[in-house]
Amino acid sequence: MHPDPRVLVDYRTSDDAGVYRWEAGPALVQTVDFFTPIVDDPYVYGQIAAANALSDVYAMGGRPLTALAIAGFPAEGLEEHVMADVFRGGLAKLREAGVTLLGGHTVRDNEMKFGYAVTGAIDPARVLSNAGARPGDVLFLTKPIGTGVVGTAIKFERAPRAVIDAAVESMVTLNQAAADALAALPGEVHACTDVTGFGLIGHATEMAAASQVSIVINPAAVPLLPGALDLVEENRAGGMKTNEAYFPTALRTAGAADPARLWLLHDPQTSGGLLAAVAADAVDRAARAFAERHVPAARIGRVESFSDVRIILR
Amino acid sequence: MHPDPRVLVDYRTSDDAGVYRWEAGPALVQTVDFFTPIVDDPYVYGQIAAANALSDVYAMGGRPLTALAIAGFPAEGLEEHVMADVFRGGLAKLREAGVTLLGGHTVRDNEMKFGYAVTGAIDPARVLSNAGARPGDVLFLTKPIGTGVVGTAIKFERAPRAVIDAAVESMVTLNQAAADALAALPGEVHACTDVTGFGLIGHATEMAAASQVSIVINPAAVPLLPGALDLVEENRAGGMKTNEAYFPTALRTAGAADPARLWLLHDPQTSGGLLAAVAADAVDRAARAFAERHVPAARIGRVESFSDVRIILR
Repeated sequence: MHPDPRVLVDYRTSDDAGVYRWEAGPALVQTVDFFTPIVDDPYVYGQIAAANALSDVYAMGGRPLTALAIAGFPAEGLEEHVMADVFRGGLAKLREAGVTLLGGHTVRDNEMKFGYAVTGAIDPARVLSNAGARPGDVLFLTKPIGTGVVGTAIKFERAPRAVIDAAVESMVTLNQAAADALAALPGEVHACTDVTGFGLIGHATEMAAASQVSIVINPAAVPLLPGALDLVEENRAGGMKTNEAYFPTALRTAGAADPARLWLLHDPQTSGGLLAAVAADAVDRAARAFAERHVPAARIGRVESFSDVRIILR
Repeated sequence: MHPDPRVLVDYRTSDDAGVYRWEAGPALVQTVDFFTPIVDDPYVYGQIAAANALSDVYAMGGRPLTALAIAGFPAEGLEEHVMADVFRGGLAKLREAGVTLLGGHTVRDNEMKFGYAVTGAIDPARVLSNAGARPGDVLFLTKPIGTGVVGTAIKFERAPRAVIDAAVESMVTLNQAAADALAALPGEVHACTDVTGFGLIGHATEMAAASQVSIVINPAAVPLLPGALDLVEENRAGGMKTNEAYFPTALRTAGAADPARLWLLHDPQTSGGLLAAVAADAVDRAARAFAERHVPAARIGRVESFSDVRIILR
């Protein structure tokens, strides 16, 4: 336990954001994220950076309220409108989420970087942490995976327009509606995180470890971005290989699983979906709550008592 | 006025931090700052980065409470302990200030960068903004200036050890005691800011413009870091020249002012002191409040009705 009773969650756990009890009213939930461009359009880059930074607050069960921009732009070689477009894209997403930009800091940087430090409000009694998944729970994933593969394909100009558009559409989508759906099931969501750099298996591993359980994922049930399966062989990002080496799994499928599909389970995501462990009794209500909000959530697995490995593919 | 009544101060004014009304209890005061190393010792660099980031909260009259680390480190060529030392130095300063590190984000970066997004609590009725300085007020500055010049001299190995030590001592000093002194004079501090990248004259100009007044600074009364005056001619940072071009002043001294001293008034500061406009009646009490807390504050000028320029040197 933290020596300061106001600190409910801090950097020492593998949660998505810190939580700090305010003197009165709801607690603060705080997170920071920024990264180099993953798409060519600066406005879209700003939108994705905002959706991605806000996601950690949604993943904890919070409502994001304020943001501080964090930006690095080259001193030379950038068209004048680029920086403004990045900020405009970010601001549009913040507004959609009802978040206020309070300030920010911009430095000269050889490589462009953009993101936000975000603060939200959260009910201390309803923090959705990584820990808490229970045997019997059903796992929902609220966005398809494959943004890492598509991002690499974009970089090397190997991504068809339609594939880029679908990946962008997914990345600029706020996890707000998904979080709203989960909030409509009080007490039934036992654990939640968002899928980002460690990939689906990496973040599922963290949830399983924090919850002291094993998680079973059905590879065939995991929704994929259009084109991701075709592109994966030639566009495996460095992060995918690191994730694969770092997060072991036990493959226990009846037939042979498609290796391309298994790779994608390790694909590092940007602005990925929420991964939530929901009580078995509440699965139908959860599915309805997602559908009502047009969230393309899929049932991708379930939670079991801990056996020999954290992640079982079956 | 901002359309959202919860937003009391945002990025559109030249204040040090944003202020956001919380559902209950004190308001949030939020700011972010980070920069490349200005000293060779990584532990000291971390300390300075923390003291500098916290300063904006003190300058607004707030109490800093939480921080998120923002870091960029090269993938190669860095001794292993360096990154840990930077974080340790920062953490030591956060602890001294009673601030909790809630999280952070680290990226690979060719050039090292470090800093924090900071959140504090503030009484909405007692926000110390840039605006509010009144004719007759006396200006206090709570730290000597010259960190830009000394930093440049360090970079080119032209700074004597004793000069470095004095600059470091000043930069790692929290503005907490200075802020406490000002808080002991409720209603008497009409405007406050901290002196950073725009230099003393730049930040005084912003205060004068926001307050619709002119500010008179006595160059001879401005405290300087040991060695700064000797080093300035050979170590004028790029920022000093930009500041000099951007913030005009009217020189109205009886005798000729020392040009080296005038340059220093434009020297960009890192972790600089607070610049506060205090009611004339409260000057003696302010001086006592600073002295009791061992804050080396100096009376450097006063506020006048607006004449033809914002800053008069006399």
